[in-house]
Amino acid sequence: MGLELWDGQSLYPGPGQPAGSLVVHDARTLRGLVLNPHLQFGETYTAGTLDVRGGLEPVVEAISRLSLLPSRRERITARLTAANDLGRARRNVQHHYDLGNDFYASWLDDQLVYTCAYFERPEMSLEDAQRAKLDLVCRKLRLQPGEVVVEAGCGWGALALHMARAYGVRVKAFNVSREQIAYARARATREGLADHVEFIDDDYRNVRGEYDAFVSVGMLEHVGVRQYESFSGILRRVLRRANGRGLLHFIGRDVPRPLNAWIRRRIFPGGYPPTLAEVATKILAPAQMSIVDVENLRLHYARTLRHWSQRFAEIEQQVRSRYGESFRRAWELYLAGSEAAFATGTLQLFQVVFTPSETAPPYWTRADMYGQARPDQWFAATP
Amino acid sequence: MGLELWDGQSLYPGPGQPAGSLVVHDARTLRGLVLNPHLQFGETYTAGTLDVRGGLEPVVEAISRLSLLPSRRERITARLTAANDLGRARRNVQHHYDLGNDFYASWLDDQLVYTCAYFERPEMSLEDAQRAKLDLVCRKLRLQPGEVVVEAGCGWGALALHMARAYGVRVKAFNVSREQIAYARARATREGLADHVEFIDDDYRNVRGEYDAFVSVGMLEHVGVRQYESFSGILRRVLRRANGRGLLHFIGRDVPRPLNAWIRRRIFPGGYPPTLAEVATKILAPAQMSIVDVENLRLHYARTLRHWSQRFAEIEQQVRSRYGESFRRAWELYLAGSEAAFATGTLQLFQVVFTPSETAPPYWTRADMYGQARPDQWFAATP
Repeated sequence: MGLELWDGQSLYPGPGQPAGSLVVHDARTLRGLVLNPHLQFGETYTAGTLDVRGGLEPVVEAISRLSLLPSRRERITARLTAANDLGRARRNVQHHYDLGNDFYASWLDDQLVYTCAYFERPEMSLEDAQRAKLDLVCRKLRLQPGEVVVEAGCGWGALALHMARAYGVRVKAFNVSREQIAYARARATREGLADHVEFIDDDYRNVRGEYDAFVSVGMLEHVGVRQYESFSGILRRVLRRANGRGLLHFIGRDVPRPLNAWIRRRIFPGGYPPTLAEVATKILAPAQMSIVDVENLRLHYARTLRHWSQRFAEIEQQVRSRYGESFRRAWELYLAGSEAAFATGTLQLFQVVFTPSETAPPYWTRADMYGQARPDQWFAATP
Repeated sequence: MGLELWDGQSLYPGPGQPAGSLVVHDARTLRGLVLNPHLQFGETYTAGTLDVRGGLEPVVEAISRLSLLPSRRERITARLTAANDLGRARRNVQHHYDLGNDFYASWLDDQLVYTCAYFERPEMSLEDAQRAKLDLVCRKLRLQPGEVVVEAGCGWGALALHMARAYGVRVKAFNVSREQIAYARARATREGLADHVEFIDDDYRNVRGEYDAFVSVGMLEHVGVRQYESFSGILRRVLRRANGRGLLHFIGRDVPRPLNAWIRRRIFPGGYPPTLAEVATKILAPAQMSIVDVENLRLHYARTLRHWSQRFAEIEQQVRSRYGESFRRAWELYLAGSEAAFATGTLQLFQVVFTPSETAPPYWTRADMYGQARPDQWFAATP
């Protein structure tokens, strides 16, 4: 990796041109990069005083490989990550998700699924891969017609609607983003599923009742570690002990380490990707749950982010004129940086299936989860 | 559950006959059961001063359900579990495994696989289920011809030989049980695999070299927690960072808790079934490994143990005349109690696949792991 400075100096690691370079436009930017790289890389790229030669994604990936291990500062931050009380949780979510449904609709898939997709075949489309993910989650949970499911953090409602349509379950789906809930409700009505899926504009911690299955896709990483005890208590309270099943799908880590400082400040305030051990000891064990199955889909998230980056690049002009250039650069970097983190293994994507400890795993082997037999309905029924 | 005493008194939980009863033959036995049930149940059953009416397995299973949570004494013991230095490790293993190959051959499957089998279909034979397990492990590791594999704790060698025969890899397999090593070497020679599999009569901690894959099936539960640091260091040292893969197959727990006191004293000295979190934080994270896949096969172990119990019952007379009645009762109880523990969820069976954190998972999806395409060789080639 090369370094090119504002005064014309170029620092290369060896003879010949390097694959990529950081181009630093002023001394203040250089100082920031040296003293606080995790935060200032994003800040200065967004401001335009840092540029990248050789393609943003490969350069960010190369940097990502250099930072597989957490720094001392990061270890301390991991321990201090702030609690998310109900009010802050709502503000944190709104910071990101209430940018406007139109914004996300312009570069996500047709169902607005803003979490890791599942590419059954590497070349399948993003749309198909998101549908495949929704169905994989249902198969892992072995949903049966007539069962009652609670979803914590339902986004724009795609999973809740898929569960109801293809598996005949009733769903209560929680979300604190008003824009998302409004979209999800309208879609449920349009698709005749409003009697089967209730979208609730409330924090998942206010859930009441007992359920056959608990599912949460892409929410746990927005819950601060200090909230795990209450998360665990809710699991224990709402999941039926006999034949209950749960699935957590979340961005995680191999070792405790905070989210990148810039991402935490600008993109996901309050975000923290837990280790599998943190989830096991702080959430599942206290709720008396057994881990049945864990799958790490990090390469699928790298591919998902590649799709998002490509689509985002196609609408570059509109984003710049509507939200400004620094917003566009921030999002460009966030998508490229996340792809690099999943590609190199500084971030993981875990799907964890669990049951109350006295309840048997929901399947004898995984084999039929990967068989050909699938509900026919859902291939035709998506919007 | 009923309780019947030596003086004719019967204590039943309600009107009518209970499904099963404990029959206590003297006051000393009763006192032991009250004061230290985890240890004395096994001790007194073995001695014959405790009997069970209604079938050993269902009664033990009912007791197992009452003890899903660890007692305070067990929590403390879990923390104090003794270290297994090299000498003690060898003695602990010999205590159990050097009972004689003949003994195990009389009730295990035809390849002497003394770990949880994998029943692709619930009704398949124990022989087929053990072969299916060996192959499942190989598929999870994505073994390629010419690769070099190290196995820590190889038993009678069935997995090492299967890997070499069906996947074309070279194997170094470690074991501190001399009887097992002698058997495995003889089998390798007989099957023409002696050039591909080296059986080494040594502690796995003395392994040298670099390997494409690390595998350990049914050994980790014999390694004390205090040895995890050295286990982790060995993993880090011997597994190639680029494209290395590992698999740990072990008896585990949902929460830290020692093995049943009687089992620890009489059957597996030094044994400790770790939680997934303990393995993640004490072994895999310090070795800079990422968890790729976890499967909980506890119901398969319950079924395996059912097969073993049935076969053990068929040779009851021989065992009694050769080893004595209290030995026979101890083993009868150990098999039934273990089945109950896996059936009720007080014990888990985890298969964990991992890679060095900078190495991609060995597969894109799990689907082809469960497809029809299998090496043809191994169906024909078993002894």
